[in-house]
Amino acid sequence: MINTILESISSPRDIKKLPADQLERLCAEIRSFLVDTVSVTGGHLASNLGTVELTVALHKVFDLPQDKIIWDVGHQSYTHKILTGRREAFHTLRQKGGISGFPRPSESEYDAFIGGHSSTSISAAIGLCAANRLKGRDDHVIAVIGDGAFTGGMAYEALNNAGKNIDNLIVILNYNEMSISKNVGGFARYLAARRSNPNYLKMKERVEKLLDHTPLIGRHLKETLQTSKSAIKNLLYHSTFFEDFGFIYLGPIDGHNLPELITTLEDAKRRKKPVLVHVDTVKGKGYSFAEENPGAFHGISKFDVDTGLPNAIQEECYSQVAGRVLTEMAETDSRICAVTAAMKYGTGLQDFAHAYRDRFYDVGIAEQHAMTFCAGLAASGLVPVFAVYSSFLQRAFDQIIHDAAIEPQHVVLAVDRAGIVGEDGETHQGIFDVSFLSMVPGIVIDSPCGFWELELCLRRAVKQESGVVAVRYPRGTENTAIPWPEKEYPYFRFGEGADALIVTYGRLSEEAYFARRTLAEAGISVDFLKITRLVPVADEIYEICKQYQHVLFYEEGIRNGGLGQLLLNGLYERGFDGKFQLHAIDGFVPHGKIYELLADLELDRAAMIRDVKMLQ
Amino acid sequence: MINTILESISSPRDIKKLPADQLERLCAEIRSFLVDTVSVTGGHLASNLGTVELTVALHKVFDLPQDKIIWDVGHQSYTHKILTGRREAFHTLRQKGGISGFPRPSESEYDAFIGGHSSTSISAAIGLCAANRLKGRDDHVIAVIGDGAFTGGMAYEALNNAGKNIDNLIVILNYNEMSISKNVGGFARYLAARRSNPNYLKMKERVEKLLDHTPLIGRHLKETLQTSKSAIKNLLYHSTFFEDFGFIYLGPIDGHNLPELITTLEDAKRRKKPVLVHVDTVKGKGYSFAEENPGAFHGISKFDVDTGLPNAIQEECYSQVAGRVLTEMAETDSRICAVTAAMKYGTGLQDFAHAYRDRFYDVGIAEQHAMTFCAGLAASGLVPVFAVYSSFLQRAFDQIIHDAAIEPQHVVLAVDRAGIVGEDGETHQGIFDVSFLSMVPGIVIDSPCGFWELELCLRRAVKQESGVVAVRYPRGTENTAIPWPEKEYPYFRFGEGADALIVTYGRLSEEAYFARRTLAEAGISVDFLKITRLVPVADEIYEICKQYQHVLFYEEGIRNGGLGQLLLNGLYERGFDGKFQLHAIDGFVPHGKIYELLADLELDRAAMIRDVKMLQ
Repeated sequence: MINTILESISSPRDIKKLPADQLERLCAEIRSFLVDTVSVTGGHLASNLGTVELTVALHKVFDLPQDKIIWDVGHQSYTHKILTGRREAFHTLRQKGGISGFPRPSESEYDAFIGGHSSTSISAAIGLCAANRLKGRDDHVIAVIGDGAFTGGMAYEALNNAGKNIDNLIVILNYNEMSISKNVGGFARYLAARRSNPNYLKMKERVEKLLDHTPLIGRHLKETLQTSKSAIKNLLYHSTFFEDFGFIYLGPIDGHNLPELITTLEDAKRRKKPVLVHVDTVKGKGYSFAEENPGAFHGISKFDVDTGLPNAIQEECYSQVAGRVLTEMAETDSRICAVTAAMKYGTGLQDFAHAYRDRFYDVGIAEQHAMTFCAGLAASGLVPVFAVYSSFLQRAFDQIIHDAAIEPQHVVLAVDRAGIVGEDGETHQGIFDVSFLSMVPGIVIDSPCGFWELELCLRRAVKQESGVVAVRYPRGTENTAIPWPEKEYPYFRFGEGADALIVTYGRLSEEAYFARRTLAEAGISVDFLKITRLVPVADEIYEICKQYQHVLFYEEGIRNGGLGQLLLNGLYERGFDGKFQLHAIDGFVPHGKIYELLADLELDRAAMIRDVKMLQ
Repeated sequence: MINTILESISSPRDIKKLPADQLERLCAEIRSFLVDTVSVTGGHLASNLGTVELTVALHKVFDLPQDKIIWDVGHQSYTHKILTGRREAFHTLRQKGGISGFPRPSESEYDAFIGGHSSTSISAAIGLCAANRLKGRDDHVIAVIGDGAFTGGMAYEALNNAGKNIDNLIVILNYNEMSISKNVGGFARYLAARRSNPNYLKMKERVEKLLDHTPLIGRHLKETLQTSKSAIKNLLYHSTFFEDFGFIYLGPIDGHNLPELITTLEDAKRRKKPVLVHVDTVKGKGYSFAEENPGAFHGISKFDVDTGLPNAIQEECYSQVAGRVLTEMAETDSRICAVTAAMKYGTGLQDFAHAYRDRFYDVGIAEQHAMTFCAGLAASGLVPVFAVYSSFLQRAFDQIIHDAAIEPQHVVLAVDRAGIVGEDGETHQGIFDVSFLSMVPGIVIDSPCGFWELELCLRRAVKQESGVVAVRYPRGTENTAIPWPEKEYPYFRFGEGADALIVTYGRLSEEAYFARRTLAEAGISVDFLKITRLVPVADEIYEICKQYQHVLFYEEGIRNGGLGQLLLNGLYERGFDGKFQLHAIDGFVPHGKIYELLADLELDRAAMIRDVKMLQ
């Protein structure tokens, strides 16, 4: 029995048949469905509530899967997923084995390209458009990209390649004045000015007509045109940023007005040039708690629909500790600056930003710039701390090497979300940072476990180290049940004299601690070496390992280039004659809960216990 | 005895004393000096000839080292070096132990920031400006950046962060319509239109006055202004790309007119807001051969000053072979597209570009976009080949993982300049690619040695492989004296039954071949395993290594994360009980000739011979 319009939609074709009033009702039903589902599964809510009408209008006007929609960042694609055959599976969102929170071509033919990281959509769309042209197809490719993602340089590189020889490209600027927190920078101000002039285009036309039909000015105008050719024309016609890049500019239009959206998209579809449609949307639209506080409802855990409050008490997390420590240090050390790429809240810097406004820099989703900007600050004797998620730091790989390491600049990388991040899946797992950072000559890499140790490492990184120093820490909270011996650095050993030694770092230290305790209870003795400073490897670490017949090494990161291979290299050169087991990650890690994934990867305490028992 | 004005300049302070006519003479002398020196040392010529007056004017107007100049890319900093105490050392340019071809703070206090890779200067300059502000200093920071470098997204990320809270930032847009080859994209067209209107700004003022003083229009204008507030103002004042980002825009001015340059820079210096000065220059200015063919004189080897012809016969290089093979393949395979990030000639794609214009894409200095654009092409069933220098591919690290590898897209990376590149030094050495690529799940990495093998690998990469496939090859030419056994893939062994085995890949295979021959002549037997496919490692490679007491592995790349550690890991797991020597690179590699550097790194045939003899 079908009770709702939403339930009648089994493919996007069904949307095309609906009359206008039913489309409006469909949008309302989708909103309820989104709020109800995400309140149970957790996920991205505000951005999806903001793009309900836009998504319905896109499916009304375009024919998927021949036409393609590429969702930049991708976490705003829930409505699209619900409308393209994934409504019934939607309750499995972000759960292990369930559907992804991001567009995944492997999941559906309606997902044209992967999403996850920011500012990639126009580049991919141009690729699809170029292919269409070569194949003689006239399908449309639509990139949906927020103004936040437009602060990433890749979007601009793509714009620069879109104006010429590309047909049937439509870029939807989803303008909501937010990335996750409030947007920053000159471009944001530029767009804001435009938003405040809804009749901008009409006004342009009026000025133009005014000039045309005014006898006096007409004469002068002709003179001016004769001396300067296209300059006036430029002034009148080419006055938007996007037109400078060869786009037809349509908008701004109300992103919650379905008829206006449909009319404008149909207009865009008819043009034979790249079109940019500027759509104003409200993050969290239609769910008051999310509208009032879109930041809190950006990515959210389970919550109560009626109160908008989270169902679980939020535990203090590593990000908050990092923010607190940096804020404390900044009080007495005026050299410290904090830099974020649009992740002020995510990286726990809100208090720093409030207390030391002059020394806080949110540069937008611009990791490349952030890194070189930090190198510039450091070149002047300041100590910048770039707080950034591990998987996003991949964007600044070249800048770390080129701008900060060759001529060493003292830049501290506070690498948040290092290791498995859980429900966001492949695109966001922080499994590469140890590998890509450890190849950088001269770098120091710390991987604390526990809040006290994060503090220790951050203070050392700022006060005692030089050059590029990375302090990497996991998503989530510490296990307070472990009596870590404080102030041990760069490593600490639990036990001495067993035949086997577990070696690990970061979050897995907790797993090793409990594995060792459980084994001890079963009468099996194993020692445990917790490494805090990964690179450079302390010589003593090799000496300790050499005392054992079996070294069992666990790494919450990719195998190739990781600490394990580096340790093995060093041990081998030092004539280690025991057995070295290297447990690490050998491929991309899908979405699921962190500890489910660690178990699947055989990196949790259960795996360690099994491995040690195998030695008996 | 001082014969010239140039010889009287021992520091930039000396420039300030010179009257106008002597400044002009100084420029002429610098040009002669540049041509004479670079004709002997080799180096970047055209870009330096284009910036002589600009550099002299900058030193005339600003006070270094308090004020800072950051040279984007940095290869146009020769005049600056000559004027800042390095004239007498200039004949050592790019020679081992001599001065660098790029700005290096470790070389001079006048070099404010490292240069080498493109589009970094504004980010670094903003860092220096922000530091000045925090310190209460009002020194100026000048970023000199070409329109080519402006095609890189980082420059835009920086612009977006420059408009607010940054004082005393001056960005010089050095407009010469070139990066190395002709510039591309919407932004280039935009600038070209501006260049064609030298009176653009004056005209703007005239239109403005016209409107102000025209009674009829004045009335209408007021009405319009009342309904739309700042839109007209926007139209008149905020009509340049740079003004949208909060810059004061000055120019375009003639970059070879010293008085105009000095006046404009003094004007820029007085402003208390970020200023962009648009300077038109001619690459190769003043040396007719370079003016006529700036591409050929971009980076050049020794040449004859009188004829402009190179002193050595240009040997065929790997880049040309790659270009030829791809062009041949494209004839019968319409799926093949070639993509370059402003390196059409450098990567040997000029014939492809000519023959298959529709399938050739020069995207500007935009490696991030290039990679994701390729993934988009591949998602549509085409086979894009992204030809890119190893050290520049570092820019696309995140895009390789995120856009091409997670949902595998068949993208071929033709990684040129892999390994030591020589005279360009630290910033350009291609020593990281094996490490940062080998951690990408699912990737295939080939490292051919010899033109025949490059062809074999490229054909395999396009026709037989899937997912991301990297074919990496060195700068320069092959040694034709080696009778390689053709069509052996993915490895080949020379000799069988010795106690020791040399293992290597890529260019070092030539070294190993000759080392083995020399050793044989001395009666010392050693076998040699040449690896072509590095990743995934063929099981047989492990089996072969296990037959030896000594495996001597040589890697023209960074140790951490390289093939050596990966092989050692695999051998260790397979119970290898011989000795494995891992010879690789442990830090940044300075400038010098390729074989000088390989000798210093103990990776050449002489080192191999020594290492084998040590085993006797």
